[in-house]
Amino acid sequence: MKLAGLVEYDGADFAGWAAQPDQRTVEGVLSEALETVLRHPVKLAVAGRTDAGVHVSGQVVSFEAETTLAPSTLAYRATAVLPKDVALRRCSAVPDNFDARRDAKNRSYEYRIVNDPVRSPLKCRRASYVARKLDFALLEEAAEMVRGAHDFRAFTPARTYHVRFERIVSESRWEKNGALLTYRITADSFLYGMVRALVGTMLEVADGRREVASFERLLSGGGRDEAGPSVPSRGLTLVGVEYDNLDFEGAT
Amino acid sequence: MKLAGLVEYDGADFAGWAAQPDQRTVEGVLSEALETVLRHPVKLAVAGRTDAGVHVSGQVVSFEAETTLAPSTLAYRATAVLPKDVALRRCSAVPDNFDARRDAKNRSYEYRIVNDPVRSPLKCRRASYVARKLDFALLEEAAEMVRGAHDFRAFTPARTYHVRFERIVSESRWEKNGALLTYRITADSFLYGMVRALVGTMLEVADGRREVASFERLLSGGGRDEAGPSVPSRGLTLVGVEYDNLDFEGAT
Repeated sequence: MKLAGLVEYDGADFAGWAAQPDQRTVEGVLSEALETVLRHPVKLAVAGRTDAGVHVSGQVVSFEAETTLAPSTLAYRATAVLPKDVALRRCSAVPDNFDARRDAKNRSYEYRIVNDPVRSPLKCRRASYVARKLDFALLEEAAEMVRGAHDFRAFTPARTYHVRFERIVSESRWEKNGALLTYRITADSFLYGMVRALVGTMLEVADGRREVASFERLLSGGGRDEAGPSVPSRGLTLVGVEYDNLDFEGAT
Repeated sequence: MKLAGLVEYDGADFAGWAAQPDQRTVEGVLSEALETVLRHPVKLAVAGRTDAGVHVSGQVVSFEAETTLAPSTLAYRATAVLPKDVALRRCSAVPDNFDARRDAKNRSYEYRIVNDPVRSPLKCRRASYVARKLDFALLEEAAEMVRGAHDFRAFTPARTYHVRFERIVSESRWEKNGALLTYRITADSFLYGMVRALVGTMLEVADGRREVASFERLLSGGGRDEAGPSVPSRGLTLVGVEYDNLDFEGAT
């Protein structure tokens, strides 16, 4: 039968999602745990392949399983053999043709920044740190421009496997909670490195190094070297993936 | 001159606050960083000596410094040489007779629990994990009993350096945010291990293993073996210390 799983991980000690020889990857440890419980090879489809250091609170995978275990029991047993920085939090039966990557309608990320003259050790495990003064109103203005359909090629490396650079952004906004600034973005899908390059470029707007108009122009296309630097991966979290017909009961 | 400092640390990789030979302690690394910047020996007084693994968002220290540096510059320079899991976030000049330990009027802790059938890797760095069902109303009822002046000897090891077991609790309450349960407690001071033993005993009430009346009796004294087990230190954070006349500008 086909199953979908809800996966959470702390990205700090992983070389990203995708299995690579001699690297500790989430795909690697999760496949291994499922194979231990199911006693057959497992091939995972995944909604969002994440980079090294990126955290995930709501990743979705799908895979074939030959088992009489209830999906919730499988999730429980796989989590019991997983290392403590990753968990298979929920598991559900899905139609045979379900694919976690192809069927995803939207992905949502958040990027967290601690904006304070002095760094915060407790917040910085899942946030990057910016000491310089940022104009929050400019961040809000830039984020609003990101909403809608744009050509995001300026926000992904020039050497690319992507063939289509338009993405449709349905949510893009900054929130401020004391020194913690959180950027939330939802789109149909994302180019490689897109969120971290967008945030790095918006920070240039917010600290006065770049005009808002320059940021707006880049949303119609441009070279990667015209946009700002990428912010560190530890501030980035994939928070959720949306499907037409998938609901993990009781997931928070 | 006498200075007070506001210190934050992630306790995961420290053997607690107090300097010990051949152990990585917060007192050890912070004294060393201050001595590097000040170029003279530093002796720290501290508001709350924390155990191994306990986190701190608002620790207060005081020390003598012979320097012409502004306090904020000293904080900045010390943080620049500190490891990434600890920061001296603010520094202020205080009266010569100020002592961070003796003058503290109140300490506030929070204890975080993820209460979910499956563990959460992202939340569990600063929370402990309870899979079994908890009755939140019973947690609230127990927390309310803790408020006021009580004899807390049942919540600290029998072999003790304490001579007085009464403490005055001004705040004691649980908050629920989805699967995350947070206990907040403020008292004039705390017995060694008191918060973790209180939480462990309240959990026995909330999962039905202990009557509320039994918990209430322990607040008038009792043996440590009559109370419940201590919960893990990684869920505990010292969030702040209150003084009559100390305010760190802009601290969040």
